[in-house]
Amino acid sequence: MWGGRFGGGPAAVMREINASIAIDKRLWREDIAASRAHAAMLGKRGILSADDAAAIDNGLLQIAAEIGAGELVEDPALEDIHMHIEHRLSELIGDAAGRLHTARSRNDQVATDFKLFVRRSIDDAIRGIDALESALLARAEQHAADVMPGFTHLQSGQPVTLGHHLLAYREMLTRDRSRFVDARARMNQSPLGSAALAGTGFPIDRDETAAALGFDRPTANSLDAVSDRDFVVDYLHAAALCSVHLSRLAEEIVLWASQPFGFVRLPDAWSTGSSIMPNKRNPDAAELVRGHSARIVGDLVALLVLLKGLPLAYAKDLQDDKPPLFDAHDLLELSLAAMAGMICDLEFSPERMRAAAAAGHATATDLADWLVSEANVPFREAHHIAGRAVASAEAAGIALDQLSLGELQAVDPRIDQRALPRLSVEASVAARQSAGGTAPERVREAITAARAEIAARKGE
Amino acid sequence: MWGGRFGGGPAAVMREINASIAIDKRLWREDIAASRAHAAMLGKRGILSADDAAAIDNGLLQIAAEIGAGELVEDPALEDIHMHIEHRLSELIGDAAGRLHTARSRNDQVATDFKLFVRRSIDDAIRGIDALESALLARAEQHAADVMPGFTHLQSGQPVTLGHHLLAYREMLTRDRSRFVDARARMNQSPLGSAALAGTGFPIDRDETAAALGFDRPTANSLDAVSDRDFVVDYLHAAALCSVHLSRLAEEIVLWASQPFGFVRLPDAWSTGSSIMPNKRNPDAAELVRGHSARIVGDLVALLVLLKGLPLAYAKDLQDDKPPLFDAHDLLELSLAAMAGMICDLEFSPERMRAAAAAGHATATDLADWLVSEANVPFREAHHIAGRAVASAEAAGIALDQLSLGELQAVDPRIDQRALPRLSVEASVAARQSAGGTAPERVREAITAARAEIAARKGE
Amino acid sequence: MWGGRFGGGPAAVMREINASIAIDKRLWREDIAASRAHAAMLGKRGILSADDAAAIDNGLLQIAAEIGAGELVEDPALEDIHMHIEHRLSELIGDAAGRLHTARSRNDQVATDFKLFVRRSIDDAIRGIDALESALLARAEQHAADVMPGFTHLQSGQPVTLGHHLLAYREMLTRDRSRFVDARARMNQSPLGSAALAGTGFPIDRDETAAALGFDRPTANSLDAVSDRDFVVDYLHAAALCSVHLSRLAEEIVLWASQPFGFVRLPDAWSTGSSIMPNKRNPDAAELVRGHSARIVGDLVALLVLLKGLPLAYAKDLQDDKPPLFDAHDLLELSLAAMAGMICDLEFSPERMRAAAAAGHATATDLADWLVSEANVPFREAHHIAGRAVASAEAAGIALDQLSLGELQAVDPRIDQRALPRLSVEASVAARQSAGGTAPERVREAITAARAEIAARKGE
Amino acid sequence: MWGGRFGGGPAAVMREINASIAIDKRLWREDIAASRAHAAMLGKRGILSADDAAAIDNGLLQIAAEIGAGELVEDPALEDIHMHIEHRLSELIGDAAGRLHTARSRNDQVATDFKLFVRRSIDDAIRGIDALESALLARAEQHAADVMPGFTHLQSGQPVTLGHHLLAYREMLTRDRSRFVDARARMNQSPLGSAALAGTGFPIDRDETAAALGFDRPTANSLDAVSDRDFVVDYLHAAALCSVHLSRLAEEIVLWASQPFGFVRLPDAWSTGSSIMPNKRNPDAAELVRGHSARIVGDLVALLVLLKGLPLAYAKDLQDDKPPLFDAHDLLELSLAAMAGMICDLEFSPERMRAAAAAGHATATDLADWLVSEANVPFREAHHIAGRAVASAEAAGIALDQLSLGELQAVDPRIDQRALPRLSVEASVAARQSAGGTAPERVREAITAARAEIAARKGE
Repeated sequence: MWGGRFGGGPAAVMREINASIAIDKRLWREDIAASRAHAAMLGKRGILSADDAAAIDNGLLQIAAEIGAGELVEDPALEDIHMHIEHRLSELIGDAAGRLHTARSRNDQVATDFKLFVRRSIDDAIRGIDALESALLARAEQHAADVMPGFTHLQSGQPVTLGHHLLAYREMLTRDRSRFVDARARMNQSPLGSAALAGTGFPIDRDETAAALGFDRPTANSLDAVSDRDFVVDYLHAAALCSVHLSRLAEEIVLWASQPFGFVRLPDAWSTGSSIMPNKRNPDAAELVRGHSARIVGDLVALLVLLKGLPLAYAKDLQDDKPPLFDAHDLLELSLAAMAGMICDLEFSPERMRAAAAAGHATATDLADWLVSEANVPFREAHHIAGRAVASAEAAGIALDQLSLGELQAVDPRIDQRALPRLSVEASVAARQSAGGTAPERVREAITAARAEIAARKGE
Repeated sequence: MWGGRFGGGPAAVMREINASIAIDKRLWREDIAASRAHAAMLGKRGILSADDAAAIDNGLLQIAAEIGAGELVEDPALEDIHMHIEHRLSELIGDAAGRLHTARSRNDQVATDFKLFVRRSIDDAIRGIDALESALLARAEQHAADVMPGFTHLQSGQPVTLGHHLLAYREMLTRDRSRFVDARARMNQSPLGSAALAGTGFPIDRDETAAALGFDRPTANSLDAVSDRDFVVDYLHAAALCSVHLSRLAEEIVLWASQPFGFVRLPDAWSTGSSIMPNKRNPDAAELVRGHSARIVGDLVALLVLLKGLPLAYAKDLQDDKPPLFDAHDLLELSLAAMAGMICDLEFSPERMRAAAAAGHATATDLADWLVSEANVPFREAHHIAGRAVASAEAAGIALDQLSLGELQAVDPRIDQRALPRLSVEASVAARQSAGGTAPERVREAITAARAEIAARKGE
Repeated sequence: MWGGRFGGGPAAVMREINASIAIDKRLWREDIAASRAHAAMLGKRGILSADDAAAIDNGLLQIAAEIGAGELVEDPALEDIHMHIEHRLSELIGDAAGRLHTARSRNDQVATDFKLFVRRSIDDAIRGIDALESALLARAEQHAADVMPGFTHLQSGQPVTLGHHLLAYREMLTRDRSRFVDARARMNQSPLGSAALAGTGFPIDRDETAAALGFDRPTANSLDAVSDRDFVVDYLHAAALCSVHLSRLAEEIVLWASQPFGFVRLPDAWSTGSSIMPNKRNPDAAELVRGHSARIVGDLVALLVLLKGLPLAYAKDLQDDKPPLFDAHDLLELSLAAMAGMICDLEFSPERMRAAAAAGHATATDLADWLVSEANVPFREAHHIAGRAVASAEAAGIALDQLSLGELQAVDPRIDQRALPRLSVEASVAARQSAGGTAPERVREAITAARAEIAARKGE
Repeated sequence: MWGGRFGGGPAAVMREINASIAIDKRLWREDIAASRAHAAMLGKRGILSADDAAAIDNGLLQIAAEIGAGELVEDPALEDIHMHIEHRLSELIGDAAGRLHTARSRNDQVATDFKLFVRRSIDDAIRGIDALESALLARAEQHAADVMPGFTHLQSGQPVTLGHHLLAYREMLTRDRSRFVDARARMNQSPLGSAALAGTGFPIDRDETAAALGFDRPTANSLDAVSDRDFVVDYLHAAALCSVHLSRLAEEIVLWASQPFGFVRLPDAWSTGSSIMPNKRNPDAAELVRGHSARIVGDLVALLVLLKGLPLAYAKDLQDDKPPLFDAHDLLELSLAAMAGMICDLEFSPERMRAAAAAGHATATDLADWLVSEANVPFREAHHIAGRAVASAEAAGIALDQLSLGELQAVDPRIDQRALPRLSVEASVAARQSAGGTAPERVREAITAARAEIAARKGE
């Protein structure tokens, strides 16, 4: 491919380090699509004859059929997917194949192909997020009023509803989704026609190829276009943060499924056993989701390190952009699907959750709040009184809401009868009516609002 | 602060690991603003009396004046900036201070304060980007038609214009800017009123505090609101990628300033010398910009690792969110300012650049393109012919454009007279008229378009 | 400092980005020690007169006293700690100060100073590890025979002893220690005398300065010596992995302290409360240890990214080596101390642990093992039988060891009387006598062996 | 494999996320070796009958032959390589296969297999390092006295010899080697016999299996043994830092091969061309080495993140330890081989290097040093004088060593005749005789010392 100047061939190790076909063959669909768009434009602009343009298009379609049927034969000497396809094209249509590369370089070609792939990866991620969101909303609705302990520092803090808890993850996913949407908008410019780095003297029409490939417009600067990999980093950032959110949910599933918690049971379909311990029912999928987030973070780091300090324009280092992206794509897709499946199938134990919510004197804040509202005690003082009530319950080895009125008044005489009903976990969650709060009616409102947003999205 | 339940005090090491005042004192402005908004709302809603609300507001204003004047006395026993301010408030106004914390927790307070700080950091970044963009546009305009080598693989590939090269960085900055703008829009929701994790039973008005603090709306889920640090990760991602872009430009400045390149001279204001070598003129600022990007990448990693696998809701691990953010903020701000300064002051050497552009047979592509357009040779064959011409020039120890017509025709007889003028670097850049290409008129158009965008932005 | 060639002064931003005094002042002890060793050697070799050498030494001692007394006045114009000290020296002793820099450059000076600091950081880390090891051994001895659930996948797998569990962390620490010891041995070579990058023509004695500063020998290559920061990366690697180990232990403390587990109670000295929830007792120190590990990982990344792709020799990027190192040092030191304190003071609840160990049918493997040993059943089949026994217990809602002999024989008739006593958690741990196993006598042996190792270490 | 307790099968996504055969099949050699050692020991101890032990061994040998011949059929339902082999064994030898897993769990099995693989990876790395070291020594010897510019800040600082420069990389490799050697010693303990997490009640002999597999001893704590992945992190650290060193050398090759430098020419065997620009000769292999280091850093990060915060003992997250390790292994092996090849084949241009060394007034330090030694000027003053001489040469547009004695004396009258010969680049390098300095005789001594070390190593 490099033409008439090279005498000797590459060293064996050189050939091995340089060949990327085993990796970039995943770009074959995108490469053919971009070549077809380029050839059609060259034809329209008279840079190629109509016959050549048609021959090229037919040849490319045939190659697509061949590769789709699994007939790609990898040849390290042909280095990458672009050369494999071009080489096969010349086998199929002869000399005309040599005209396809007019006004194009591998630099803009690979940037275009890879952008198309990343754009599709973004769409995959959004689809996966939407499926998980649906699962979360369905389970949140089902458990909108079920009480569980709300933890901070993994210490029981205040009772919350399970529906509210699940919706917290819906919020994270909403941000994840918007991150992918933003990344897609930012990257959707076509590098095709930037050639090696300087643009070209052929009278090409970059708007046309951009439109044909679904891009919003051509990129504005050819040097930038061939050396830009921001779109990969943006994808990896969105993927890393999304996977970190999934890892938080996975961590909770692992915790909840442990015997001491016992908040959920993973059905057989989502459990594995042990090769030695017949008693085990392991939440492997949740752990793998957690583990995968570590690898996606590693992939993001790899890309940032790769780009740091590279002068313009294209450098071969950029070939190392693909393995981290492919890895992250596959891991995220699987993680989202596994999480959606688990959320659908988890068997919650509302009784265990409620029992745990009642432990830990979790309504002490309600007592303090009552003192503020009904007895006009400054919050700091009320907090102190409630703390002493907790200490008194602890000393007696009972729960806060089991203290008698007399015992409470021994702590502070301003506490009266009306405070007692405030100390149940049901009363506690029902009281938290503030916007975004955990009260069941707020949870139901949030689900309704989420469904409206989804409907609006689909209407777009 | 923790009230009536604790007997013993903290261990000395516990006190030391737990105290964050040395770090989070940077949030004092935000803490006071958020407390003022909260107190005003409590007053309006009748949760506080008008007198208490006024006393609190006056007290907070006085504290702001004191801290602004450098009068904050750090006391590790008071742990963090929030307690320092609350403690001082109670010194100033007595019992009423204890009412400020009604319907609020440190969890939503710190989330609110930190969001305000990060939002300001975003605004700082955008301002820094805009200044650098101006510098790049000014220098690009000045050198719109000056020719330099366009490198790929750091090998001279085709001639480009210096203006075009500088504008490539403007494109990166435009994406950086949009990343910050997107992050700002995504994060601009107020956590205040989420309380510890569950919301509150007090009849607060979260819309009001959100509006008072410049947020678009309150957050939708209280559990998410207190445990969300996406906004920090989004900032760090945008900062890391921006700093990587700066590191690429810095790398070029270092290269260009080296003796073998000699493309630029750094004025004294941007150079340092050596303690031992009297001949040195070192591009320290550019190197530090490059180094800073490494640290910002480290900061991003720290945040992602911090969040991974954390169950809901708040956990103390989240206190470690601040040092990486503060570090990245300061490094990015300085990097942008230093780069803007250097770009303004760099003394380019157009002669050295032009001379280098002419080396390396950089117009070989122009010869190939000519064969395609004028002699109807398929590109692949034309590429091969041009390669042989390069080999022939190399063998003769001269540049490609110094080959005589006869010598060129010895390579391929289809080359004729008309090809010769195409082989100068000026003709080469002038020919690359495709959209986004390096031709001087395209560069000037791009500058005009950029200025229009900036004007439109300001009009917003 | 840069002498006669510079006309203009630095730009304000240049001065700011270039000044490192606020950070590298932490190196003052090392800078003075290295300068004293250098001056003494110059004096011995006759490169300095005896009078000059004495004046320099006295001056440096006085400066050390001043800085030790807090009298360092930071001046950004003096850039770094090296220039601050040199400038003060010239104030104190005049012209002779100008002779100290003979045969030395800031490049080898800073490499030497920083190596001394890192070496001290390694010693700090080893001391911290040793203290935590002592705490673990003491608690392990106390609980050598106490039974707790052994988790895999956070599912109860087999009973283990608490002593055995704690000793697992001792193993990690032993590896951490050896990592620091290896790093120390690898880095303990003196860069001093490498000058800027090429060595010097002055007849210096590098062996002497190396010995004076406690190095094993001088570095072998001057270009490497001034650009090597492997020692920082090695420290950060050892620190990151050590902190990851601490984060695992911290995670367990957080889990164990949660209400559903209830395996430990953190005393007041290691707990914090909540500003809103009077019932809370939060394991902040454990969470901060976990969080700190994230930051140390970020510090390691920063250094690796910093070094990647830097050509020889010194580049100013290397100035960014210090903040990550200082950060990691401080975080690791605090983490080790906090963990040692917590391990000493944790109040374990052996009853809760034993009760949890008995749940989850954790002795199912013992049943399978019995079938193999006593009934000659192949393990795979025995595993299957024990699995069916667990299913039968689950169906009956009882624990495996509560099944009657009849019920067990209904699962498989080869199970006989002798199997029953094997199913208690005490029998289970007592049986695991293999080397490194959880049986109490193995735990006690391991403690004895550890103490012998420690004694041998001290004897060294 | 999980026996009698599971009713339903796994969900399709669960099966997909859980299957690791596509990745861990690389462990087949190690798995068979470890199983053979385990079975032989069980036989010797009478836990297996002699017949069963022999059948298992023969079966495993046959499987090894089959897999070696490429006959492994991947079946996702069989999850991983361990189950593939066990399943095939039971096809081959029937029931006896079910006895192989006596006193063993997948947890200790996979830890053992993977340790064997990592140990082999370490040996591969050391072999690769040794080959590159040989190449560096050979080229350093060849160019021990050739002068090139010594850069700091990529500014010409002082002349050095090319041999000295190449030996700087040999120093880095020596540290890399010792890092791998240390990691090997630290990890070389056998986990086999730790079973699931608690050890086993079968009377196994862990010393015997350890010895059979080349381990120094068995691990000391079974909980640690199955959850330890330090050995992977240690490998990745050593690999990351080694690859960073290679990236520095790669960066220099890219720089040196650029037209403005022209210090080296990459032969055809190590160059690629361009699909569009016939004039290009690109240093792809060097760029890929640089890029690969970014990915190895990402792999290291993935592992650290994976481990952070995992409670004991085994968790499925640990399955994600293999892809980063395999990736790093392959990238490092290729990088070392490519670098060794390039170093052997690079065509240096000593003339271009010498010419560049003479530019930049690189002997200004020699003038200052002369003033100190011969005219007793304090170094700081001498540095200032030499700086003025540089300024004077710059003003005249000539090199420092082209100034006449008169011109030098105009700068400072103490400069006399004897100073002039000190200003040539040859005199400059010859003068730097200090230990580790760049003088050709020091370079030759260093090569001799290196060869003695290598010989001693081989004698071990």
